Amino acid sequence: MAQHATVEQLDQELLGSSPVVEDSLSTISAKLRAFRDARDWQRFHTPRNLALSIAVECGELLEHFQWVDDEELSAHLAGREDDVAEEIADVAIYVIQLADALGLSLSEVIAAKIERNERRYPAELSRGSAAKHTELSARRGS
Amino acid sequence: MAQHATVEQLDQELLGSSPVVEDSLSTISAKLRAFRDARDWQRFHTPRNLALSIAVECGELLEHFQWVDDEELSAHLAGREDDVAEEIADVAIYVIQLADALGLSLSEVIAAKIERNERRYPAELSRGSAAKHTELSARRGS
Amino acid sequence: MAQHATVEQLDQELLGSSPVVEDSLSTISAKLRAFRDARDWQRFHTPRNLALSIAVECGELLEHFQWVDDEELSAHLAGREDDVAEEIADVAIYVIQLADALGLSLSEVIAAKIERNERRYPAELSRGSAAKHTELSARRGS
Amino acid sequence: MAQHATVEQLDQELLGSSPVVEDSLSTISAKLRAFRDARDWQRFHTPRNLALSIAVECGELLEHFQWVDDEELSAHLAGREDDVAEEIADVAIYVIQLADALGLSLSEVIAAKIERNERRYPAELSRGSAAKHTELSARRGS
Repeated sequence: MAQHATVEQLDQELLGSSPVVEDSLSTISAKLRAFRDARDWQRFHTPRNLALSIAVECGELLEHFQWVDDEELSAHLAGREDDVAEEIADVAIYVIQLADALGLSLSEVIAAKIERNERRYPAELSRGSAAKHTELSARRGS
Repeated sequence: MAQHATVEQLDQELLGSSPVVEDSLSTISAKLRAFRDARDWQRFHTPRNLALSIAVECGELLEHFQWVDDEELSAHLAGREDDVAEEIADVAIYVIQLADALGLSLSEVIAAKIERNERRYPAELSRGSAAKHTELSARRGS
Repeated sequence: MAQHATVEQLDQELLGSSPVVEDSLSTISAKLRAFRDARDWQRFHTPRNLALSIAVECGELLEHFQWVDDEELSAHLAGREDDVAEEIADVAIYVIQLADALGLSLSEVIAAKIERNERRYPAELSRGSAAKHTELSARRGS
Repeated sequence: MAQHATVEQLDQELLGSSPVVEDSLSTISAKLRAFRDARDWQRFHTPRNLALSIAVECGELLEHFQWVDDEELSAHLAGREDDVAEEIADVAIYVIQLADALGLSLSEVIAAKIERNERRYPAELSRGSAAKHTELSARRGS
């Protein structure tokens, strides 16, 4: 990470004002691996434990959507944006770590899935419809 | 996306041999937004629907860990790696879309959370321990 | 189970017209235990596998609530009532089996929790409010 | 509920020593309905909110299985049995309330599902195997 950081960013970091923001999945993944290894957490980070942790954090994320109807939701979320952001980060971090623990490139599996979705959901057939790809195939007779 | 792709990549894509792999979260996010908008799916992509979709896909991911004990697990997963990879991609895609729907930069929320975890779990205190940060704080008397 | 079934019920069952319906949690639990043991499934029914199975089925249940807003929901559910009912049954069955695997009486843990909720959410304080018990306590200054 | 309680049970309840334990799903369901109505919580108890609440509580349940391998698990759970029991109760309560909100008899949907599983998983074919019913059907050539 260090080699990507400018002097300004390092200064900021030392001042605690804001973290260095990495946008590359492979860099974030490497950063999380270093974090894990510095704490000797490899033995905890089994694929099952990480998958289970995604579910735990997903439950905490859903908690912010509980008991609120569609109309009230955006005002409700606005009042707790930082907490929601933190739960999203938790889910994302475990997803990145799970891919890593399985030796997968998350960028590659995402790219493959987007490509698959493009084939499954042709824009002209899917427009404005929440039909599943299996239903779309049925309509196309394929 | 097009402007990042080399001629080789575009050729590959046309041949269907492999998708263009983006590693940048903001580029993936933009790609998913274009995918959504081309299908007029904005009205379905409410924060609640996306959060719920994370939970649905997380359930499908966990299915691969069902009924298998620690010992059998790696052989079991090896036999279904593509399916597991696809479920991981599904969770990741909805997480990226949820951050986007809430106007959050996923890179930033991840960076903020990693920094927070670094403060909560100092390497020297956390080594080899699965204790929660609240338990660590108690031990430190803080 | 047999001793509770009337001749009419047994006849119905043989004809496949409808199952014998047990309403007692301990009887359902015993029935599920017999089902499991007849298939030698004890070794699969560890507490972790059962907890994970609840999450898997919960994901399938949530799938029926995906992509639908509050207004459309009841019409949407009406068209798939049997599927929703089956997912609810799946979650319930694993919950009953998890309690059993841990040697807990589900009736007792439910009764204890209802009693606790009655103390946490006094009717006069909670009326029409979705506030959590921790928020209610704060308001009461307790 | 009152009409089922003996004088001894009522005494116990008044002394706070232990709650009246109902074992019948329909009685528990009625009790929960009365609890809800006394607090005017009907408007919160939509099917979607209840389904989402099952997922939230399921996440809390899974938290007890995080970071622990098969070998350590039973000792780990023994130390937190009351908390696990409470999470199980939470999931069960929301499942019972969801069935009720949809006008379903939970006893009936459970009985129907057990019957279905008996047909899908014949004892002689399923013994000691975690194969899914779809795999069993394939083996039977059906």
